[in-house]
Amino acid sequence: MSAEAVKALEAVDDVAHAYAGDVFHTPHYGQLEALHGCVIGVGADGDIKLLVYSSRAVWGEADDEDDARATPGKLSEAERAAVLRALEEAGVLTTLPKGDRLFPGFIDTHVHAPQWPALGKRLHLPLNEWLQSSTFPAEARFRDAAYARTVCRDLVRTLLQHGTTTTLYFNSIHLEAGQVLVQECLRAGQRAFVGKVSMDNKEENPPFYCEETAQGLRDVETFLEWTRKTAADARPHAKRDTPPLVEPVVTPRFLPSCTDEMLTGLGKIAAKHGCMVQSHASEGDWEVAYGAARFGETDAVVFDRFGLMRAPAVMAHSVFLTDDDLKLYAARGTGIAHCPLSNFFFADASMLSRKAHEAGVSVGLGTDIAAGPSPSIWEACRHSIVASRALTSGVHPFKHGEERKTHGASISHFEAVYMATMGGAKALGIADHVGCFAVGRAFDAQLVRVAHAPGTDSPVVIWDDIDDTGDVFAKTVLGADDRCVEAVWVQGRLVKGDAARFGDAAIDPTHGITVAVRGDGGSGYDSGASAGPRKGRSSSSSGGGGGRGG
Amino acid sequence: MSAEAVKALEAVDDVAHAYAGDVFHTPHYGQLEALHGCVIGVGADGDIKLLVYSSRAVWGEADDEDDARATPGKLSEAERAAVLRALEEAGVLTTLPKGDRLFPGFIDTHVHAPQWPALGKRLHLPLNEWLQSSTFPAEARFRDAAYARTVCRDLVRTLLQHGTTTTLYFNSIHLEAGQVLVQECLRAGQRAFVGKVSMDNKEENPPFYCEETAQGLRDVETFLEWTRKTAADARPHAKRDTPPLVEPVVTPRFLPSCTDEMLTGLGKIAAKHGCMVQSHASEGDWEVAYGAARFGETDAVVFDRFGLMRAPAVMAHSVFLTDDDLKLYAARGTGIAHCPLSNFFFADASMLSRKAHEAGVSVGLGTDIAAGPSPSIWEACRHSIVASRALTSGVHPFKHGEERKTHGASISHFEAVYMATMGGAKALGIADHVGCFAVGRAFDAQLVRVAHAPGTDSPVVIWDDIDDTGDVFAKTVLGADDRCVEAVWVQGRLVKGDAARFGDAAIDPTHGITVAVRGDGGSGYDSGASAGPRKGRSSSSSGGGGGRGG
Ligand SMILES: [Zn+2]
Ligand SMILES: [Zn+2]
Repeated sequence: MSAEAVKALEAVDDVAHAYAGDVFHTPHYGQLEALHGCVIGVGADGDIKLLVYSSRAVWGEADDEDDARATPGKLSEAERAAVLRALEEAGVLTTLPKGDRLFPGFIDTHVHAPQWPALGKRLHLPLNEWLQSSTFPAEARFRDAAYARTVCRDLVRTLLQHGTTTTLYFNSIHLEAGQVLVQECLRAGQRAFVGKVSMDNKEENPPFYCEETAQGLRDVETFLEWTRKTAADARPHAKRDTPPLVEPVVTPRFLPSCTDEMLTGLGKIAAKHGCMVQSHASEGDWEVAYGAARFGETDAVVFDRFGLMRAPAVMAHSVFLTDDDLKLYAARGTGIAHCPLSNFFFADASMLSRKAHEAGVSVGLGTDIAAGPSPSIWEACRHSIVASRALTSGVHPFKHGEERKTHGASISHFEAVYMATMGGAKALGIADHVGCFAVGRAFDAQLVRVAHAPGTDSPVVIWDDIDDTGDVFAKTVLGADDRCVEAVWVQGRLVKGDAARFGDAAIDPTHGITVAVRGDGGSGYDSGASAGPRKGRSSSSSGGGGGRGG
Repeated sequence: MSAEAVKALEAVDDVAHAYAGDVFHTPHYGQLEALHGCVIGVGADGDIKLLVYSSRAVWGEADDEDDARATPGKLSEAERAAVLRALEEAGVLTTLPKGDRLFPGFIDTHVHAPQWPALGKRLHLPLNEWLQSSTFPAEARFRDAAYARTVCRDLVRTLLQHGTTTTLYFNSIHLEAGQVLVQECLRAGQRAFVGKVSMDNKEENPPFYCEETAQGLRDVETFLEWTRKTAADARPHAKRDTPPLVEPVVTPRFLPSCTDEMLTGLGKIAAKHGCMVQSHASEGDWEVAYGAARFGETDAVVFDRFGLMRAPAVMAHSVFLTDDDLKLYAARGTGIAHCPLSNFFFADASMLSRKAHEAGVSVGLGTDIAAGPSPSIWEACRHSIVASRALTSGVHPFKHGEERKTHGASISHFEAVYMATMGGAKALGIADHVGCFAVGRAFDAQLVRVAHAPGTDSPVVIWDDIDDTGDVFAKTVLGADDRCVEAVWVQGRLVKGDAARFGDAAIDPTHGITVAVRGDGGSGYDSGASAGPRKGRSSSSSGGGGGRGG
C-alpha cells in the first residue's frame, strides 16, 4: 500500500463528511486539472482532511512540470476502494450524482452591497448622472439599518446561490449598516471581507452622502474592532482554529472621494491593525486625469505614499496602469479586482488581465455590482474572456490589422476560472486556504449540475457522444448560471442545496443557522436565534447517486 | 364615444383571445413605448384585431414627433371599461398577472442549427481549428436525418423557451436535414426562415463536408419548392390568409465556400423564385483578405454582382463594411444580422450597429449559435450594448483619449430591443407583420415576468419603491433570461406557457400540436399525429390575474 493510501486511511477518523465524485479545479494559471473518481473528506472544522482520486487529466497550457504540479492523492483502484469502504463504514460518505462536478467556490473581489437594488438600471446614463441619480441615493439609504438588512440579506443569499463562497464588499459610509452586512454574512455562512466606505471630500461627494473626517476615521476603527470580535466569536466550537469567516477592510472609496487627511488616517489604521485595504484605482479617463491634476502621480503611487498599497490590498479595476504601476503592485503584493463587464460600461477601456498576471500581480474577478449588471461570477468569467478577445483583436473595423490588435491579450475559460478562484484567493491573501482542492485547505465548493441529454431547461447541455471532458468544462464555463449550482459549501458547511443529500447543515432563513457536525452536536452558528440542533450524522445521505432533481 | 372606441367595440366579435396587461415595445429606434392598461384582442387567424390602452409613456430619445408616433388606441377609462366588458361577456378575456409585461417576440436573425450540440465548446481555439474540430463535424452529422431531428427539435424548443418567436436558420448542406428543420419549426409553431446551406468549393471546404455544384443547385430548388408547399399546407383553416409560418432561404455559406458557378446559380434561383437570400459577409480579416484576393472587390459588391443582394436578404456580421458597402446594402434593401457575442470570438472587430442603422440599413440581432455561445436574444441585447460601448470608449488602455474612442457608437437597451424586434423584422422583410404591437399585425409575443420583491430566484428584481417604469424595462433587458419568459405566442398560438391560463392551444411534444380557436374547432396544425381537438374556449381563463407562479 502506498504512503498516500496509508495517509488517507489514517485521515478517515477526522472526516465528518466525505463526497465522492468528479472534480474540476484550476490550481495553476491556464490549466484545468480534472480529477476523476475523486473522494474529498471534510473535517468538523470544515477543512479538507483527505483527498484521493483514481485518474487525472490536464487541459489547457501543458508543460513539462505537469506531473510535478499534480494534486497529491492518486491511488490505485484497490487503494481507493479501501478508502471508500472505510468512509462508508464510518457513515460519512455521500456519493455525488453522476455527471455533477465539484468546482471550487467562486470569489467575487468587488461588490458594492448598497447598490444591489439598483442592479441593471440607468447604465445608459453618463457616469456622473448614473452616480447622482442611482448609485449615491442607493448608498445613502443605508443610513436606515433595517433597510440595509433587507438588502444585504438578499444580496448575500443571491451570491451564495450563484456559487460565490467569498466576497470582498464595499458597503456604505454608515457604521451600523456595515455591522449589518457583517452579521448577514455570518448568518448565511458566506466568507467575506467587508469595508465600511470612507468618503469625506466635500468637493467631490454629494452633500447627502459625505462624512466628517474625524468621525469617519473613528467609525472605521470601531467597525474594524467590532467586526474582528464579532467574527471571532461567531465561530462554532469545532471551527475555533479556522480563520474567522468575516474580516474588516479599510476602504477609501477612491482617491477623489477622500481628503489627504482621511487617506493619511486610513493608512495609519491599516498599519496599526494589520488590516486589509481596498479601493478603486486607475479606472477611467476622468479618474486618471483627476489624480494627475491633484497629486501629479498615478493612483498606485499616491496610494503607496499613504501606506495603502499593502498585502493584501485589492484595487478595483486598475485598467490604466503604467508598467511602473504594475511593478509597484507586484512589489507590494497588492492585487486587482478585474471587473470586465463594469469596464465596458464605465472604465473607458478593458483591463489587460494576462499582462497583469504575467507581471506577478494577483488578479481576481469581480462583478462590481451594480456598475456590472450581473451578480454572477460565471458571467464575469465569460466577460473576462470577451474583454480579452476584444483587446487581442481590437474592436474598430475602420482600423486595419496591427493598428487594431494587441497580441497575447487573450485568455480562455482556463484563465477565467483561475481568476475566479485561485486568482481571487491570492489577491485576498487567502490562497493557502481556499481557491482549489487539497488536503489542509477549506472545503469551499460548489456542486455544478449540467444536463447530459437535450430536452431540459439547463443552460448547459452535454452531448455525451461528442463531448470530451475538456468540452464539458468549456460548455459549463461558457453557459452555466445559478440553476446549475446544485449545492454550495463554505468552510465545510452547506449553504445552498438539499441538506438531506449533501450534508447535514441547514439554513433556516427565519431562525438563523444551525449546524451539526461530528463531535459538535448542533451548536448555533451565529448570535441570532437558533432553531436548535438537527439530527446531524443520521440525516446525511450515504451513497446517494441518482438522477437530476429537475 | 371616440372613433377609436367604436372601432374597438366593433372588433370584439373578431377576437378569439384577448389579453389585458401592460406592454413594452419599441416601434421606433431608440425609444421605448410603454402602454399601461393595454388590451390586445387576437383573432382566430392570430392577427391583432383590437388594441386599446389607458396611458402611454415614452422613454429614450424623445422628439417632437412623439404624439404622431403614438400607437393608436388610447381610450378614456370609460371607453376602455366598455371594451373590457364586451370582451368579458364574449368569454375571451385573460387578465395577465400584475407586474408581468408583454414584449414582442424576439427575432434571431442568425442561427446555425446543426451547431447546436457544439454550443460553448472549443471557442478558445483559433477559427480554423474550431471549424475543423467542432463546427464542420457537427454539421456533417446532419447527413443522418434522425440525428438532425433530435437536434432541431431541441433547438427550436429552446429558442421558443427564450422568447424567440422568429429565427433565420442556416442548416447543413443536406436536403433531408433541411426538410427536418422545416418540419420541426412547423411542429413547434416557430416562425422561421430556413436555408439549406450551399458549399461546393473543394479548395475551401473539407472533403467530408462539400457538395457537387449541380446536385447542390438542384437540392436548393427542391428544398425551396418543398418548403413552400409544406408550409402553405400546414396552415390550419383559420390561418389560410396569413403568411406561411416557414419560408425557404437561398443560403451560400459565404463567398469562400462557393464556386462562381454556384453563386451564379443561386442568384438565378433567388430571382426566379423571388426567394430570400442569406450569407455571411465581411466578417473578419481572413475573409476580407480572401475576397479581395479572389474577386478584387468587397463582399457586398461580389454578392451584388451575383444577384444575391436582394430585399429581403440578410448578411451576417457585415463588420468590415466600407461606406460604399453600406450604401449598397441600403440601396438593395439588404439587412444585417448583428451577432455581437460571436464578433468578440471570431470577427476581429465589432459591428458598428448605430452607424449601419443611420445609413438606412436594417439591423437585427443574431445569436450565431454556436460561434456565439448563448441561445438567448436577451443575451444578444446585452452584448450589443457591450460591443457598442467597447466601440465608443475603445478597449486599449495604452492608447490615449481620442486615439482610443469612436464617438457616437454607443447604443442602450432601447436600441438593443429595437434591433431584437423591429430591426430583425425589417431585415427579414416582415416588418408590416411582426416586431411590435398594432392592429393588423400578428400576435407574436412573450409575457415577461420579473420579481417585484427580493427573496426569489428571478434574475430580475424590481424594488417597487425606487424603480420607475423605465427602470423596470432597463432591469429586465439587462437581466432577463428564459426563466422570465412566462408565455410565448406565435401568430396567436401559445407555444410556451400554461395553456389553461394564457390561451387554449397546447403543444404535446410527443403527439404533435393541436389548436382550437374560435370558429375552428381543433384542427391539427401540422402533418404529425394530432391529439385531437381540445376544449377551446371553455378552457381559457377569464379574468385570471393572481400572483406569481414561482
Ligand atoms: Zn466599484
Ligand atoms: Zn454564422
